[in-house]
Amino acid sequence: LIAIVLDRQPSGTRRLRLGQDHADPQPPPGEVRIRTSLAGICNTDLEIVQGYAGFEGVLGHEFVGVVDLAEDPALLGQRVVGEINVPCGTCPTCCANRPTHCPDRTALGIRGRDGVLAEYFCLPARNLHLVPEGIPDRVAVFTEPLAAACEILEQVHVRPTDRVVVLGDGKLGLLVAQVLALTGCELTVLGHHAAKLAILARQGIPTQVGDDGLAASADVVVECTGRAEGFDLARRLVRPRGMLVLKSTCHDLVQTDLSRLVVDEIHVVGSRCGPFSAALRLLSQGLIDVTSLVEAEYALGDALLALEHAGRRGALKVLVRS
Amino acid sequence: LIAIVLDRQPSGTRRLRLGQDHADPQPPPGEVRIRTSLAGICNTDLEIVQGYAGFEGVLGHEFVGVVDLAEDPALLGQRVVGEINVPCGTCPTCCANRPTHCPDRTALGIRGRDGVLAEYFCLPARNLHLVPEGIPDRVAVFTEPLAAACEILEQVHVRPTDRVVVLGDGKLGLLVAQVLALTGCELTVLGHHAAKLAILARQGIPTQVGDDGLAASADVVVECTGRAEGFDLARRLVRPRGMLVLKSTCHDLVQTDLSRLVVDEIHVVGSRCGPFSAALRLLSQGLIDVTSLVEAEYALGDALLALEHAGRRGALKVLVRS
Repeated sequence: LIAIVLDRQPSGTRRLRLGQDHADPQPPPGEVRIRTSLAGICNTDLEIVQGYAGFEGVLGHEFVGVVDLAEDPALLGQRVVGEINVPCGTCPTCCANRPTHCPDRTALGIRGRDGVLAEYFCLPARNLHLVPEGIPDRVAVFTEPLAAACEILEQVHVRPTDRVVVLGDGKLGLLVAQVLALTGCELTVLGHHAAKLAILARQGIPTQVGDDGLAASADVVVECTGRAEGFDLARRLVRPRGMLVLKSTCHDLVQTDLSRLVVDEIHVVGSRCGPFSAALRLLSQGLIDVTSLVEAEYALGDALLALEHAGRRGALKVLVRS
Repeated sequence: LIAIVLDRQPSGTRRLRLGQDHADPQPPPGEVRIRTSLAGICNTDLEIVQGYAGFEGVLGHEFVGVVDLAEDPALLGQRVVGEINVPCGTCPTCCANRPTHCPDRTALGIRGRDGVLAEYFCLPARNLHLVPEGIPDRVAVFTEPLAAACEILEQVHVRPTDRVVVLGDGKLGLLVAQVLALTGCELTVLGHHAAKLAILARQGIPTQVGDDGLAASADVVVECTGRAEGFDLARRLVRPRGMLVLKSTCHDLVQTDLSRLVVDEIHVVGSRCGPFSAALRLLSQGLIDVTSLVEAEYALGDALLALEHAGRRGALKVLVRS
């Protein structure tokens, strides 16, 4: 079977390859086998290829697919998306209802578990969400990143009267901006690419290139630039006692004067995976334009080209069809 | 009149001096004149002497004193403490009920307003809090730093079942630890000085030298070390989705990998000035041992020696009596 595999050569160097003879995965108890229909490439995948998280195995975690082997016959043939973290379910962190932070978790294509850039993969049945009929595959495949955008509203109370700034017009920034706009807040999105900002402008969301004219008056700033400099810009735009949400996982070291956070009593919160159920509801209602974010679609056999494309500066969502 | 004045020599270099001929301050409308009884030296004072905040004028902001000139005759002769920030009262930040963050504020001995290391100084009447009779001067002088410790509980809901770690056994750490212990939380205080930690141990607060054996399991970590390294230690001790409170204003640049905040969805909040009314209630009830924190007391004429003493590594509270 075909799969995109990250492994190590005998010399120890990382190697990303198109495996032609990948074994047919067999689901352990509690898990199902899913035939991938469509997968999305995320910046995290690109970071993993660069060595982040020390992952080895099949890459990919954004998918929509069809259940192909399951203990529960009702699941067979169902079109599904799935949460990517597989917690142990019994440790103190899981018992405290923070399963996505389980220290022993595996994560699809990220940590100790083969991912979705393959013909088939396995996931626990409890991770699955059925995709409503009205949502096409090219929309459903955005459930995972859209859930991550919704996580901001799980963590922070964004009020309809808040001034909110989203930094970054990449894939994540465009989803985050659309979710936040639904609150009715006074939103401005800062980016570098007029064409990408136009996707938001079409929905009436105010955008601007660069930070000219913006004062330190935002109640909430969401950092989605994926760049170390984003933090200092975010800090400069947030008001005293405001909220700064860190959404992008930039592994570069940031050098910063934390006393500014103390004097201005700023809140900072990191934000990661989010609620699939809410993301599917927003997609069902047609409230989020995700198809404008699709830049290209490749066949699974060309997935190495897809990854190369996704890594180009400024690229939006690249999809891989199985 | 005598006052400790930070000014600039014609060459531009900072000079801290004992002024012998300081003018008698005259309160503008809305303000009172206060005769300083006892003043405390804070790390912020030492930072200001080093040039932080670009302040020039009379140093000092922690005080207890007696009103000596006032429009309202009921205030004359009253023993008072006072909030240090003087906001404009009319800007958007003030109208949003964040007066301590008013961009046009002055602050006693810190920003555009002569401080308390003098025989007399002025402050708006609305900044004053009467000191209850049962609280001696040597206790009342701790109201301002104790209020800053209380600010943590204004910002963060610390539950009786939370695991809390306080980093630092300096003046601020010892006050913060005592305030947090009142919540009933499972508290551990990490420090470097057995003698200082003993002040807490006498109250039954668990302390330890160094971080041996502590896992990343704290619900709340409060950083009071005053050192740049404190941030990374705090981050290592807090659990996923936990709360990291930054209390010390360290102006050294911190180099850190913010992606750990994102992956673990950590909350960070900076914390500064706090509620005087709550601090006075805690002092009235005798719930906070502040007298053990007094290291030395100097006369105002020896205040330069007092500042030198306060700057010694590991020094606790140095007081100055007028």
